[in-house]
This record gives sequence, structure tokens and C-alpha cells, in this order.
Amino acid sequence: MDTYTAPLRDIRFVLEHVTPLSELTALEDLAHAEPELVAGLLEEAGRFAAQAIAPTNREGDEQGATLVDGEVVTPESFKRVYQQYVDAGWGAVQHPPEFGGGGFPLTVANAVKELITSANMAFSLGPLLTTGAVYLMVHHASEEQKRTYLPRMVSGEWAGTMNLTEPQAGSDVGAVTTRAEPVGDGTYRITGQKIYITFGEHDLTEQIVHLVLARLPDAPPGTKGISLFIVPKFLVNEDGSLGERNDVHAVSLEHKLGIHASPTCVMAYGEDSDGAIGELVGAPNDGMRLMFTMMNDARLGVGLQGLAIAERAYQQSLAFAQERRQGRGPTDAPGEQVPIIEHPDVRRMLLTMKAYIDAIRGLCYANAHALDLAEHHPDASVREHQQKLADLLTPLSKAWGTDLGVELTSLAVQVHGGMGYVEETGVAQHFRDARIAPIYEGTNGIQAMDLVGRKLPYDGGAFVKGVFEEIRADVDGLPDACRDIGAALAAAVDELATTTDWLFTRRESLADVLAAATPYLRMFATVVGGWQLAKGAAAAQRLLDAGHTDAYGTGFLEARLTVARFYATQLLPQVHGLAPAVMAGADDLFAVTAEQLAP
Amino acid sequence: MDTYTAPLRDIRFVLEHVTPLSELTALEDLAHAEPELVAGLLEEAGRFAAQAIAPTNREGDEQGATLVDGEVVTPESFKRVYQQYVDAGWGAVQHPPEFGGGGFPLTVANAVKELITSANMAFSLGPLLTTGAVYLMVHHASEEQKRTYLPRMVSGEWAGTMNLTEPQAGSDVGAVTTRAEPVGDGTYRITGQKIYITFGEHDLTEQIVHLVLARLPDAPPGTKGISLFIVPKFLVNEDGSLGERNDVHAVSLEHKLGIHASPTCVMAYGEDSDGAIGELVGAPNDGMRLMFTMMNDARLGVGLQGLAIAERAYQQSLAFAQERRQGRGPTDAPGEQVPIIEHPDVRRMLLTMKAYIDAIRGLCYANAHALDLAEHHPDASVREHQQKLADLLTPLSKAWGTDLGVELTSLAVQVHGGMGYVEETGVAQHFRDARIAPIYEGTNGIQAMDLVGRKLPYDGGAFVKGVFEEIRADVDGLPDACRDIGAALAAAVDELATTTDWLFTRRESLADVLAAATPYLRMFATVVGGWQLAKGAAAAQRLLDAGHTDAYGTGFLEARLTVARFYATQLLPQVHGLAPAVMAGADDLFAVTAEQLAP
Repeated sequence: MDTYTAPLRDIRFVLEHVTPLSELTALEDLAHAEPELVAGLLEEAGRFAAQAIAPTNREGDEQGATLVDGEVVTPESFKRVYQQYVDAGWGAVQHPPEFGGGGFPLTVANAVKELITSANMAFSLGPLLTTGAVYLMVHHASEEQKRTYLPRMVSGEWAGTMNLTEPQAGSDVGAVTTRAEPVGDGTYRITGQKIYITFGEHDLTEQIVHLVLARLPDAPPGTKGISLFIVPKFLVNEDGSLGERNDVHAVSLEHKLGIHASPTCVMAYGEDSDGAIGELVGAPNDGMRLMFTMMNDARLGVGLQGLAIAERAYQQSLAFAQERRQGRGPTDAPGEQVPIIEHPDVRRMLLTMKAYIDAIRGLCYANAHALDLAEHHPDASVREHQQKLADLLTPLSKAWGTDLGVELTSLAVQVHGGMGYVEETGVAQHFRDARIAPIYEGTNGIQAMDLVGRKLPYDGGAFVKGVFEEIRADVDGLPDACRDIGAALAAAVDELATTTDWLFTRRESLADVLAAATPYLRMFATVVGGWQLAKGAAAAQRLLDAGHTDAYGTGFLEARLTVARFYATQLLPQVHGLAPAVMAGADDLFAVTAEQLAP
Repeated sequence: MDTYTAPLRDIRFVLEHVTPLSELTALEDLAHAEPELVAGLLEEAGRFAAQAIAPTNREGDEQGATLVDGEVVTPESFKRVYQQYVDAGWGAVQHPPEFGGGGFPLTVANAVKELITSANMAFSLGPLLTTGAVYLMVHHASEEQKRTYLPRMVSGEWAGTMNLTEPQAGSDVGAVTTRAEPVGDGTYRITGQKIYITFGEHDLTEQIVHLVLARLPDAPPGTKGISLFIVPKFLVNEDGSLGERNDVHAVSLEHKLGIHASPTCVMAYGEDSDGAIGELVGAPNDGMRLMFTMMNDARLGVGLQGLAIAERAYQQSLAFAQERRQGRGPTDAPGEQVPIIEHPDVRRMLLTMKAYIDAIRGLCYANAHALDLAEHHPDASVREHQQKLADLLTPLSKAWGTDLGVELTSLAVQVHGGMGYVEETGVAQHFRDARIAPIYEGTNGIQAMDLVGRKLPYDGGAFVKGVFEEIRADVDGLPDACRDIGAALAAAVDELATTTDWLFTRRESLADVLAAATPYLRMFATVVGGWQLAKGAAAAQRLLDAGHTDAYGTGFLEARLTVARFYATQLLPQVHGLAPAVMAGADDLFAVTAEQLAP
């Protein structure tokens, strides 16, 4: 029942007509990512995800990862599938060719990530963390560090991790206390503990390269005194072979609500020695800045998880709704039971899932598209503009994508009725797995603060207003047949602009701005999602008008229009219900004490 | 960390100032439920729930219920606590004195249910089902059946269950195929299987009395051919002692997302014989009607589960937010970390939980209040009116209470950050437990269909419009200091009235009406919740104005005002965002085929 089909046609449509890959391949850096090559790549990735990885999902949940004598054991099927992943080079897609990477746009690499995450979110986290570590090292490690670590990390033979969180330093990363003492030979001795380290230890690779935030002895307090270190599980000999075991160990695993097969480790450094041996990356006390350079990539990657898990839960729900028979449709005569997809309310659930999934996909792919242009466009002003756009979209992708991941997997449980609550059905796992994504990689509250605090003020507000103008221009350019979509989108962007103006009037009252953050982010993302769907609807309408339906099929194109109209007229208007909360200010929030709120 | 405090002051405030218990005790039937007696009862129930039951919640989740050689084993602590429950007579509160019950209003019994459910939802389900069975038998069983079963079911010495669902008959109960053959001696032989039978078998009581829906040999098809039978686990001898084991057995248990300690059984009747021995309740083929008489009570009971589990998760979140330190508040100077409750976004989460909880409590207690008046008021026209009101409120209590149960426990996970995803913290259990409630006792989609299909048409629409007028009259009567609450509520009820009018214009198009059902229910319940909060705010304002603050404390009363204002100005406006979905019609839902929606 819980099978998975790679939604290649949906993805291809976005890459051709919503956030065109052709705009990327027009650039010299990315010219090799030709449409046919990309199509073949995605097809292959889809096959691997659906046929090899997807069947491991439930087994992974049941077996989980376990800690046995200090070693983390992953489910048996993971080892086989991970080896296939390395052999096919899936981890290398987005990385630079000089280290063995495919040099594909992030947009394409993210499509691959979506497929693999839908297939098995817990499994996907290992590669995701490695990708993040590679990204960071490509940009900031020394030539020697790159030479030593990157080729085998890009290939996936070695894994990478991110070690930030400590018990007292979660959202507040500046409170990190792990220490790094210089030894004098260029290396450092790292001592301390980290928590919530995803794939901090496992048996999928012979080597794990930990990127660790720690403080030098003379470091200033807060985020300005944090440095970044490479701490490999095994020291690497001159000849590249693995040497001594470093003193970094997983001392326990968390027992979690979901992603059971992803080992979430408490890591100890230097418990049995003077410290784990580490190498500094970049300059002393510059660790937070280095981490920030990979933040968009990492946060977008988590937003994609919301999309990916919702897509899988949606597919299962759609299949179930066609098989399961109960009751009669509103216009049926008494008699046989009908498939529940004939009931309006079940259709509403399915269309809600489909519309939001398409909207999140549009948003996340637009986000990756902006990151690609920001990195590869020859014109500096374009790069700067696209970087700002990516910065703006990232908190939306992360928070909205993952909040909806939870909401849509919950709808998927509901479509299944009683069977949805039974673990064997598999849909409850998606609901459990999805629940982590609003929390890690910066909680969604942090994303909302980032949006209103850091991103809105770009160019004194002119940047975000420019985005609204872009949306309005696209509304004006919609074909006549999409008029109702355009009207709803225009009203929504006006509402968003009104609340944005209000936020600028309150710039002096940080509490008011922060109090608005979460409903404002929801509004903003809902509008941007609707924008992407409207673009797709316009393209679908034009293809239909021109009779160019061969590449997708008339049915697919008509469904794009229906889904976009459903979203615009039935989901997008929720922004009007959120605006009052945005403009309410913080007074009522702080008018009660904790004691008054207690029973 | 995951302790529980009975919210007695909140409950007392509702019973004194929102849905006054005094209106019930003014009736002869209920005159004995004096305020002090009720206060003492609730205090005692709160102590029992918090001190005896609440500590069993996590253990119950971890141990779960298991099937060992055909017998269901519940967690060890359940046996001890259940015995205390029986000894104290908690199961008897709402039942008639003639069978040993307390004869208290349902309103009071539901308050007790709320406390026990907050303490341990899985545990509470056993007593809940027994209560439902007693309710049904009090109204429909023969005198002899009552004499035989009721005293020990009311006391809780014997348990009761409801056996409706079969694999092909979930929402579509009319599809039941379990057979009942008359033997000729007044008894029947029951054969077949039922699924999802809550506490269908367990070790808490010596006897379990199953109420089973089955078909007589000559029964007409569909719901009109279903009869109701008593099938006791042990036959009862003339002298009341337990006799032979009846051929009804649990053949397997479901492995569920949550409520692990509540055994969800597949029940088999007559596997080892000609059939389990059953007695007919009421007339042949009248089973569905009899079941329907307990539907309001049962559905309201499930709505209360949403409230109860949200309350517990909220309490845990509030405590965590005061202990956990991260970052600085918007107006704090750099330095020490502050409790996260100082962050506006965390406050928004907590106030959202608190406001919705108070609103659901208002709704559910108003619902019980209407049921009590409908049963006990001497004036037939009042009884009729209150029955209609209860009928209208019941789908709101059930669906909105349980949808919010999921949403608010999800917020509770979010408040906890990474710790929320770790099972040891306990809040993830609430999230898992809460997820069943939108599904069972009629899915929330069924509730919404019930609202638009059966309840709205009362008196050709005049009844529901009368409710809107009642709300408007209450708005007009609000003290000046509650003007902003009144304005928001007036606008919301106008929006609800507009969508209601639209629904009446579409009476001929059942698909349009059913397509609107879920967003319409959400709107309706959000308004009724706001109405209850506004009533409470008015009362709080009047007590403050009069200086009568002793009974609650000034801080409590001021918090009622703030929470009600927060709800009215920041949550209630969401109804405006839902109205377009209500009035969209079914066309877009049916404009796509399943094939077009598939990847």
C-alpha cells in the first residue's frame, strides 16, 4: 500500500515552466546541465528512490538505530542501499567537479534530495548532513583540508556531520561551551559534549568527518567567540589511509517520536584523553559566520523534507481513497459502496494536500533557483539581487514547508480513518517523521524572527516591496482564463503589503515585530506559494491554448489549472484571516504573567 | 516535568459564569447538585486524577496493552488505579440513583471526565465506554436487563463496550454483516467479527458487557436492518453470579500510533460454537436508532478528549517555558539567558493554546449544559429547544475539540524544541494520543456532514439563525471595556451568517453543501468558542468592576479578559479566511480525476 512513485512530471513541469532550469543552463558555469541530461538524471534518481530506498522506510522505522558497545547499528537494509547510493554517485550531484562532484545546479540536486527524502526521510538525513559539511568545506576549508577530506566525502565513501547543539545552547548557539585548546602543532584538543547530533555515529561509512563548533581559550563570549573545527572519527595518515581512532564517541541515542532509523547522538569529545584532535577551519572565532554561509542550503533542505514527506503521505492517501469503499457519493442512488474519493470532504482533503504540495514545491524550487543564480550569474548585481531573494525565501521554505509537512501528513492520517492510526498502515510513520522538521535547523519560530528581523529590512524595505511588485506584474500577465486566480492573488498580496507596511511602522518596537513573526511568515509563504501556482497555471493555460499538450498530457495541464484555482480561491484567502494577528502588537501577549496562565 | 494540576478554578469559573450550573440546580431533578457539593466532588476528582492517575500515563504508554494467550493484559498500575476508581464511585457520577448512580448533571460528570482524561487518556477510555453502554441501557434495556447488568456497570465493577465497526463498515455502519440467529428461547446466537473495539477485552473487571450491532436473518439491508444485542463475556446466572464463558474473544490487538495502553481489539463472536449468546435490546431492527440516542453523549465525550489532552500538554509547555532558558527577550540587554516564555513567539504559542482550550471548554460545557436541560427541564418547549441546541453543538464539540487537540499538542511539541521530539519528555505522547480523537466516534468529516446535512435544516434554518441572534444579543450586552471583543465577535457571526445563507441557497446541490462542510464547521465552532469566551470576559469584567474578586483573584479575572481579547482579535478573525472555501461549491473538487491527481 505504502509505495512511492517519483513525481517526475510535476518536477519537470516546475523546472520547465515555473522556475525555468533554462535560465540556469544559459549561464556558462551550468551550461552542461542540459535538459535531457537532467531529465535522465532525475528519472534514474526516481527509480533508485522508488525501487531501492522506499521499501526500506518501514523496516527502518521498526528496527531503528541502536547503540551497541559504543557503535551505532543502522537497519540492515540501509547498508546495502547506502552502498548503491555511493556507487551511483548520488551524493556528488551538486558538488564541484574538482572534487569529483557533478557540478549540477542546486535546483537539480534538490530535486534528487526530494525524491530520496520521500523514499526514506530517516535514511536521507545521513547524506543531507554530509552534503552540508561538504558545502561548508568547499567554501571555507584550506586547500590541504579539501584535498584530505573532500573527494571521499563528495563520493559518499566518508560521511560528514554538523555538531552545534549543547544542552544549554539550542536556538541560542552563542551559548556553546565546548572547548578547543591549541596544542602548538597546528591541531587542537576538543573537549565537551554535543547533543542532537544527526548521524553522529553510524556504520554506513568507514570514516565520519565531524564539523564542530567550539571555543578557543581566549574567545570572546557569545557568537563572536565560536570557532569551527574538523574532528574526524579516524585521524587521516599522510598517505590518505585511516589512522588512529580519535576520541570522539556517541555516548547515547535519543528515543524519538519519529525518524527512528536516523541515529540522534549525544557526542562526547575527549572523554578518554586530553581531547579529541581537531583542525581549525577558517579563522579563529569566525565559526558562526562560516556556519551561516551554509544556512540557506541547509534550511532549504529541511523545507524540502516537509514537501517530500507530504508528497509520500499524499500518494498513499490518494491510493487508499480509490481503494477504500464506504457509503455513497452525494449524487449516487442507494446500493453499492463507492470509493471514498467520491465524497466531497475526502476530495477536499486530497486537493488540499495536492495544492499545498505543489505550492511548497514551487517555493522550494524557486528558492534553489535563486541560490543558483546568486552563485553562478556573471552579473554582480544579479547575484546580489538573487542572494537577497534566496535569503528572503529560505525562512519561508523551511518554516512553511515543515509546518505543512505536519499538517498534511495529519490530513493523510485522517483520510485513512481508523487504519491511519494503525502503525502497519505506514501513514502514521510519515506523521511522526514529519514532526521533527519544524524543530531542527532553526525552529520555525527562529525562521519567523529571521524573516521579520533580518530579511524584511533589506534595502529599507524596498527589496520586499519589489517582490510584491513582481507578483503583481505576474498577476497582470495572467491569461484571461486565470482571472479568478489573479484576483485572489492580487487581494492576498495587497493584504501582505498592508501588514508589511504596518511592520515597518513598528520598527522601533521589536516586541511588536517579533510578536507578528509567525502569522506574518505564514501569510508571506502562502502568497509566494500561490504565486508559484499561478505561474504554473498560466503556463498550463498557454500550452493548452496553443495545443502544445504532448509533453504533459491535457489532463495533467488541466489539473494544474484546477489545483491552482482551488488554492487561490479556497486556501490563499486564509491570509485575510491571519492579518489581524500580525497587526495586533505584543501588548496582549505580555499582559499576562506565567502565574496567571497556570491552572 | 510532565505533572498535571486539575484546572479547578477554570472549570469553576465556567460553571458559575459561562454555562451556569445554577440553571441546572434550579430544576427539581438536579436540585441536589448544590454548588458546594459539586465543588467538593470536583476537588476530590482533581486530586484523584492528578495524584493517582496522572503518574500512570507514561508507564501506560511504554508498557501498552498486550494479548497473552487470548487475554488482554493492561499495565500493572491500571489495575490498582481502576480499583480506586471503582471504590470511589467515579463511574457512577452521571447515572441514575436507582442503579446506584450519583444522579449528577452531565455537565458535572463531564468535568470529572475531563480531569480523568487529562490524567491518562488511554486509561479513561475504559470508563468512557462503560458510561456509554450504561447510558444506552438505562434508556433502552428491559427491566430485567437493567436489573441484571446496570448496578455493577454503574459501580464500575463490570465494564461495558460498544461493538459497531467491521472491516467494511466503518463510517458506513449500515454495512454491518455480523449475524444474530434467534434460538427460540429468547436468546440469539451472534456470529461474526468486529474491529477497533476499545477495551473489548481486558483484565480490569471480572465481567465485560458488550453491546453489539448485528443483523437478524430477515433484516432489511442498510441501517434499517440492524439490531442491538447484549453479549456478556460471562453469562449471568439467575442469582447474579457469573456463569459460563461466552464465545466472544479478542483475537488480536492493533499496534497503534498512540493510546498504547488502551486495548483496541479485533473481537470474534462464535468462533468455537454456534455463536456467542446474546440478548436483544429494544425492538428488532431498531439498533441504529438506539445507538443514535447515545451519540451526543459519546461524541461530546470525545470532544472533551481533545480539550483534556490539550490542557495537559499546555500545562507541560507552560512549565517548560518558565524553566528553559535560551537567548534574550526583545527588550533585554545582552547577558544572561532568559526563560523562553519571555520570547514573544513562545508567548504566542502559549496564549494560542490557552485561548483555544478555554474556548473548547466553554463549547463542551455549553453542550453538556444543553443536554442536561434537554433531559431535565420541566417545560417541553425548553427541552425541545435545548435538545436542538445540543444536537447543533455536538458535532462542533467533537470535531473542533479533537482537531484542536492535535493542533495544540503539536504546538506543545514545538514549545519544547528538540526535547519535544524525545519520547522521555512525554509531550510527544500527548501528540500521538490526541491523533485518534478526530477519527473515532464518527470521523470529523462525518461530524461536518452531520452539521450541514442534519442540524442546519432544523426549523428550516430558523433555529440556527436564532442562535446567531443570541450571540448578537450577548455582544450587545457586553460591558464597554469588552468592546473590541464584541466588535470581533459581531463581525465573525455576520460572516458565519453569510455563509449559512449561502448554504441554504444551495440546498438542492448536496455536493456543494457537503463540500463546504469542514471549513463551515471550523467557522461555526470558532465563533461559538469566541462566544463562550466573550461571556466569560463579560462576567470577569463585571466582577472586577464590582470589586468581587475574592473567589477567583484579580489576576485570574484579568487573564480571562486578556485571553478572550487575544482570541477575539487574533484567532477568531480566521473565520474570514475560511468563508471563501465554504462558498466555493464542489465544482473544482470534482473537476479532476484520480488519475489526474496521481504522480
